[in-house]
Amino acid sequence: MGRGEAVTQRTLDPPFGGSNPPAPTRKILWKAMDISEAELIRWIRSLASPFQKKALVGIGDDAAVIKGREGYSYLFTTDTLVENVHFRWEFVHPYQLGWKALAVNASDIAAMGGYPVFALVTFGIPTSFLSSRVKEVYKGLVDLSTRLNLEISGGDIVRSRIFFISISVVGEVEAGRAVLRSGAKPGDSVYLTGDIGRAATGFLSLKEGKKLHLPSATDSLRRRWLMPFPRIKEAREIAMGGVATAMIDLSDGLSSDLYHILEESGVGAEIWEKNLPIASETEKVCHELNRSPLEVALHGGEDYELLFTAPATTNVEKIVSFQVTRIGKILEGSGLFLLNKKGERKKLKSGGWDHFLSTAP
Amino acid sequence: MGRGEAVTQRTLDPPFGGSNPPAPTRKILWKAMDISEAELIRWIRSLASPFQKKALVGIGDDAAVIKGREGYSYLFTTDTLVENVHFRWEFVHPYQLGWKALAVNASDIAAMGGYPVFALVTFGIPTSFLSSRVKEVYKGLVDLSTRLNLEISGGDIVRSRIFFISISVVGEVEAGRAVLRSGAKPGDSVYLTGDIGRAATGFLSLKEGKKLHLPSATDSLRRRWLMPFPRIKEAREIAMGGVATAMIDLSDGLSSDLYHILEESGVGAEIWEKNLPIASETEKVCHELNRSPLEVALHGGEDYELLFTAPATTNVEKIVSFQVTRIGKILEGSGLFLLNKKGERKKLKSGGWDHFLSTAP
Repeated sequence: MGRGEAVTQRTLDPPFGGSNPPAPTRKILWKAMDISEAELIRWIRSLASPFQKKALVGIGDDAAVIKGREGYSYLFTTDTLVENVHFRWEFVHPYQLGWKALAVNASDIAAMGGYPVFALVTFGIPTSFLSSRVKEVYKGLVDLSTRLNLEISGGDIVRSRIFFISISVVGEVEAGRAVLRSGAKPGDSVYLTGDIGRAATGFLSLKEGKKLHLPSATDSLRRRWLMPFPRIKEAREIAMGGVATAMIDLSDGLSSDLYHILEESGVGAEIWEKNLPIASETEKVCHELNRSPLEVALHGGEDYELLFTAPATTNVEKIVSFQVTRIGKILEGSGLFLLNKKGERKKLKSGGWDHFLSTAP
Repeated sequence: MGRGEAVTQRTLDPPFGGSNPPAPTRKILWKAMDISEAELIRWIRSLASPFQKKALVGIGDDAAVIKGREGYSYLFTTDTLVENVHFRWEFVHPYQLGWKALAVNASDIAAMGGYPVFALVTFGIPTSFLSSRVKEVYKGLVDLSTRLNLEISGGDIVRSRIFFISISVVGEVEAGRAVLRSGAKPGDSVYLTGDIGRAATGFLSLKEGKKLHLPSATDSLRRRWLMPFPRIKEAREIAMGGVATAMIDLSDGLSSDLYHILEESGVGAEIWEKNLPIASETEKVCHELNRSPLEVALHGGEDYELLFTAPATTNVEKIVSFQVTRIGKILEGSGLFLLNKKGERKKLKSGGWDHFLSTAP
């Protein structure tokens, strides 16, 4: 362990904190992280990739794909919710938080065309918490796990100054049936399950609703943000029907998540404003909140619907038993464009849902 | 989603925080968690157990055991290190922290007799961090993963007010070869790999060393606490040799971890002070720190050695290629006893290593 010795030396003379306070110039940088999340992930991926030889699919999709029991692949994914970053106790009941923490993980398994089977659950708990709150979180989690026929098979409980819940899920999909982000081809159609902008509007109504005296029509929108139901059933039809060339779940928002597919597939896309499925209640509440329903639908996250591509020749509507909407098409090259209602074609930035929004007062 | 609706109602009238401040009596309880970690885990286990039908081994061991590729089982485990709870930046270099975070997870796989194959890595990062620190953490992690032939196949990066690193590992073991905590039988001998008290003494010397002007003999002790090397090779010999009836890794300390085996196996045990493998440098530094080497060996954690039981008729020393020490025997009934050097038999409490110690100033 030669490296180990060298490093031990460094620790005895600690480079951060302790007796070596950072120099003034360093302090300035210290104020804000000097790298974007996307850049950090790219760096991590570049460091880890040379060693990726055993996973069928590694870093860069909704879940890793590894060999499973005979005839199957396992899907392996993790997602974490942190207090005051992804949620505030003011807006979410502990029961709902437990439900949601598992739902977002199961949704990553759905995004691969699979179903969740096992979960490990880690709680970071401040010592100041009442156990009743932690138990409510756990009840929400167990209730969703029962509905999904998913087993909680372990986990960890750690003390932490802020509450967090980190879940890892193992799912399953028939060998060769996993739907990746990387399979979209020019000419493919782009599809959505359900409607979009619902969760973000629900969240905004929770955050801003009191001062606006919103009507009760927001309940179903808020419920979507608080207790999303992962689209496992729909994902299974899509995967087993061999319908999709690429798929992802909508967590960061349509523009961001479609952009992930484009990046991994090396293609571009155009989406059509007139086809975007936005519910009338979403539009109504957006107007009351002085928000553009289109902006919320394009960039608002956490609907946990499925976004997928399929060959233009595939009659998706006839194959699947649920509602889908064709919202655009895949193009050669790169870039994401919006064809607006006037027929104008505009470059669309992957705005994305800032989960950090939830901390705004 | 009937339940969902009821819960949504509750959230609109939030039971915690927000517009409903807790009543005074509640505030008092709020100061300290009203349940022990062990009680909470028991409650969680009782709630989840009715649904555990698919895992071969669920909650209650070092890792869950699930069906793997043909001829194998997968092992599934998770472990988390939280800033100011499990470590302080003052004592640990970021590179070492990354190494250690993966090592403690791999050690859980070793405790089952398996080898680690895939890992998902989640970082909780304060926005005030320099990326160079996060990259150092990641380098330590990748260096150990390369030595263990383990692939990092995904993860998550989240913002968090405190730094944490949560890792989930999938390991593998030949079908039917997983060594559980629950197989110890009365009459079995109790064995240890390596020596104990080393990591805890190293940690204590880091924490208290400056004021004591300790000699440099502490380096190898500190390195054990900072960069433990998981006993995969030893675990594989034990599992494939069919040697052990039960096994666990030493993370919480000998008394606590042996107690886990006793609880899961429904037996008691006696350990022999005169046989406990304590290195002379551990003894020396303990004396300099005014600590009892015996107490540190019994209750100090994080050595990440293997503790296992084997039938008295098995000649373990002849079967395995590494050093093991027979430190006691399994008894009928329950309870843990220490036979001291004078031949007196005393009840031993499972004191355990308080990971929280690391936050003490």
